[in-house]
Amino acid sequence: MSKKEKEKAIKKEKVWQYKQYNCAAKCVNLTSGQPIVVLNETEAHQNDLYASHRVILRCNGKETIAILDLSKDMASAGEIVLFDEVAQTLGAKNGARVQVQHTMRPESIDYIKKKLDAGELSHRELDVITQDLMANRLSEAELASFITAVYTRGMSDAEIVGLTKSIVSSGEVLSIGKSPIVDKHCIGGVAGNRTTMVMVPIIAAAGIYMPKTSSRSITSSAGTADTMEVLCPVTFPVEEMRSIVLKARGCIAWGGAMRLAAADDKLIKIRNPLSLDPKGVLLASILAKKKSVGAQFAVIDIPIGRGAKLATAKEATALGHDFINIGKQLGIKIEVLTTDGSDPIGNGIGPALECRDVFEVLEGEGPADLRDKSCLLAGTLLELCGKVPKGKGFDAASSILQSGKALVKFREIIELQGGNGKVRISDLPIGKYKHGVIAPKTGRIAHVDNKMLSKIARAAGAPADKGAGVYLHCEAGDKVTKGDILFDIYSESEAKLDFAIKALEGWWPMDLQKVILGTML
Amino acid sequence: MSKKEKEKAIKKEKVWQYKQYNCAAKCVNLTSGQPIVVLNETEAHQNDLYASHRVILRCNGKETIAILDLSKDMASAGEIVLFDEVAQTLGAKNGARVQVQHTMRPESIDYIKKKLDAGELSHRELDVITQDLMANRLSEAELASFITAVYTRGMSDAEIVGLTKSIVSSGEVLSIGKSPIVDKHCIGGVAGNRTTMVMVPIIAAAGIYMPKTSSRSITSSAGTADTMEVLCPVTFPVEEMRSIVLKARGCIAWGGAMRLAAADDKLIKIRNPLSLDPKGVLLASILAKKKSVGAQFAVIDIPIGRGAKLATAKEATALGHDFINIGKQLGIKIEVLTTDGSDPIGNGIGPALECRDVFEVLEGEGPADLRDKSCLLAGTLLELCGKVPKGKGFDAASSILQSGKALVKFREIIELQGGNGKVRISDLPIGKYKHGVIAPKTGRIAHVDNKMLSKIARAAGAPADKGAGVYLHCEAGDKVTKGDILFDIYSESEAKLDFAIKALEGWWPMDLQKVILGTML
Repeated sequence: MSKKEKEKAIKKEKVWQYKQYNCAAKCVNLTSGQPIVVLNETEAHQNDLYASHRVILRCNGKETIAILDLSKDMASAGEIVLFDEVAQTLGAKNGARVQVQHTMRPESIDYIKKKLDAGELSHRELDVITQDLMANRLSEAELASFITAVYTRGMSDAEIVGLTKSIVSSGEVLSIGKSPIVDKHCIGGVAGNRTTMVMVPIIAAAGIYMPKTSSRSITSSAGTADTMEVLCPVTFPVEEMRSIVLKARGCIAWGGAMRLAAADDKLIKIRNPLSLDPKGVLLASILAKKKSVGAQFAVIDIPIGRGAKLATAKEATALGHDFINIGKQLGIKIEVLTTDGSDPIGNGIGPALECRDVFEVLEGEGPADLRDKSCLLAGTLLELCGKVPKGKGFDAASSILQSGKALVKFREIIELQGGNGKVRISDLPIGKYKHGVIAPKTGRIAHVDNKMLSKIARAAGAPADKGAGVYLHCEAGDKVTKGDILFDIYSESEAKLDFAIKALEGWWPMDLQKVILGTML
Repeated sequence: MSKKEKEKAIKKEKVWQYKQYNCAAKCVNLTSGQPIVVLNETEAHQNDLYASHRVILRCNGKETIAILDLSKDMASAGEIVLFDEVAQTLGAKNGARVQVQHTMRPESIDYIKKKLDAGELSHRELDVITQDLMANRLSEAELASFITAVYTRGMSDAEIVGLTKSIVSSGEVLSIGKSPIVDKHCIGGVAGNRTTMVMVPIIAAAGIYMPKTSSRSITSSAGTADTMEVLCPVTFPVEEMRSIVLKARGCIAWGGAMRLAAADDKLIKIRNPLSLDPKGVLLASILAKKKSVGAQFAVIDIPIGRGAKLATAKEATALGHDFINIGKQLGIKIEVLTTDGSDPIGNGIGPALECRDVFEVLEGEGPADLRDKSCLLAGTLLELCGKVPKGKGFDAASSILQSGKALVKFREIIELQGGNGKVRISDLPIGKYKHGVIAPKTGRIAHVDNKMLSKIARAAGAPADKGAGVYLHCEAGDKVTKGDILFDIYSESEAKLDFAIKALEGWWPMDLQKVILGTML
């Protein structure tokens, strides 16, 4: 909109000042998550107000802007339905006189429309959208339209860089004033994949800073934050995270509790009816988290294969190139590893059972896949930041692990985060109800399904019940005999264990085949 | 989804039968327009339920399917918030035990996703979407995604034909068993454009059937149904419409009250945050209305120019070709007229004032633009259906008008619809408060703005107040002298008249220029 057009629009809006449209408040004592008010449809239309318009509300000398919803039944003529957010802001009680006035729609709606029409958004325009998102000025439907627009039209590199910067500016930034700072991210979808808890101690023990924020589970059986929480608190303000990292060089915190890249948490929560995950938003979301902790080097783990988020190496390579390219423009040097994501990593699935794997690996034993993958990722970071020469990373990481220094560092971090640094494996709160699931026939295990195992672990109570989950006794490729125990289900209650056992009927997680088939990748 | 995949999905869903997830009903005595229930977010996630999932609810031996919304605050753990629609279906009162169970999402979500990914939808897939729309099985966000998908990806001719047929099947069909049946449609946006009320009597007087359904105003100062309602009822069931048309050959009814092309009314109401109006849906929506009254011939009026819905002849021609082409595939022979839409038609704007124009024209006088445009449209229909030879339509229509036969027919239709067929112009309920708006300077009128005039008429009370509106004393191109009356504002209340006068500051509807400029089209 040009300046002249804007002035004209403001003049048009001002007309409504002459019309006193007053309504009686009807407080419904419900939250809607957004500043929504409901007016009678017929009456609103007579006043040129339509669904999703913005209105200025005045009551008791207070003023606020709300998003309009219309209904034939919910509000009678002369009534305005106030959800909690708005009623509180206005200090309005039932029957209070609320003045309703037109106001202009947020600028960002024009930019969402522009994207839908295949236009390219400037950094300023993306900033406006991000700011409107943070201030709850956009309705869910408008935000869903933004995601849909980005999904269908894609984003240029400049747009992704711009969105990343906007997200970083929307929150706090961790500034530890040291160098180098490294980070990692895994695209997810692999059960039991707790490499972060092994890597951070290795990297920190090598003298490099790794201020790691992790997420909680949404649909999986545990996120790294859920698993770390078995051992110590994971929720603290940025300032406390800073002091932990300055002491130990590493930490494992729950990112969701901090205001780092704050807009990202809101973006993730946008109600997204078709589960769209557009690449531009995915990249900006991940890289903003890295940028906001000051990372200069990062390794991205992209698991591929049956059941993983990406099915083929081709897709992973394309995404990997985007990470490297966008990272460069943000001042983050990135290396991407595509890893086998068709099977779970480690034996435990569920917070406490995964902790057991982590301790076993840090003690020099434990599941080889978790150990090797962690050393590979940590080694890549050590090479990337110049700590060790190219080609020497894996060995360097392994040697820190075998020396026991990583375990000492892990205990130091647990202690600094407020846990018991002397915790032993036998202290871990594994669920006391257990059921061994046996092989129904003899054969070779062709596939172990990440999603189904996660569902079984969740059915047993994970991640809310820290001790619940699944412990695997075999992996893809193993030959098993009818009656062998394939895996144990652990639970903290008999009812949940019972549900998890029954759930195996629909959620059976292992393909057993007579004919020997490897994975097809 | 293949049959095998479907069976597997059903088996996966069945697992949830083993889990009894019971909640206590919290009835909120509010309507949401859709079968929405709200669960506690944390608890729902633990049960693998996410926002916009569908759930089967059981209570008091009754069962229904609802769309899930999640909230941290609105529902505590163990609670389920029921809006009126769901509470009534289940007969649930506060505290009632409601069993919550997973169910599969509607098939149509896959098809919406398909469209978003640029796929082509089959007639069956469009039928499923239309049926889910009619049964309220889709959330507002999902429906908005459908509109967005069609907007960005477009629709093939086959898709538009399929959608039109699906919309027709969604409602009743008027079957009068006579021939020929003609219809017309105007794309809208022009104030005072009441050609339908002149055309229908002309066509019916010529012995041709024209069962016309019209709409009410949404954002304008009057729809044809609002204007006709000044003279007689416009709301009746399809059967009654049939009997009126069999007697008089014509009628002017409010389409919204009938179940003709029922899905169309729902499609129009989809909350559409970006005001998208994708061409495929526009075409299907209009043509379904024509098809559902059995029209074999139709004329489409596409006004173009400054302030009209389409700005250029090029856009109008493209849309016109689509109408003709899709119409042919539906068995409707269509002719398209592009008309000058940059200025209002007639002098009156607002229901009763527009009625005055219509009666004046039917009496052989009145505004020339309304008379000529009506005869042009009616003449085109008379030629199209073969009643008069090519090139003779306008004269035939004019002669029916001048003979007074159209006025007699109009009075017959008013009487049959339940009004007073002997009504005189002086009986029309014109608002008793009047204000003459004078020219602030001498000059030529360069432009009369449809939208601003509509807004002034609405500010004065139209269309709810039948007598409110604007009466023009000049048109674009006229030379006026400072102090001349440009137009009168009529209102039924002093307060509304006052508001309309003040509103002129921001909504001034006429460009007065010293330099002589014609319309640029």
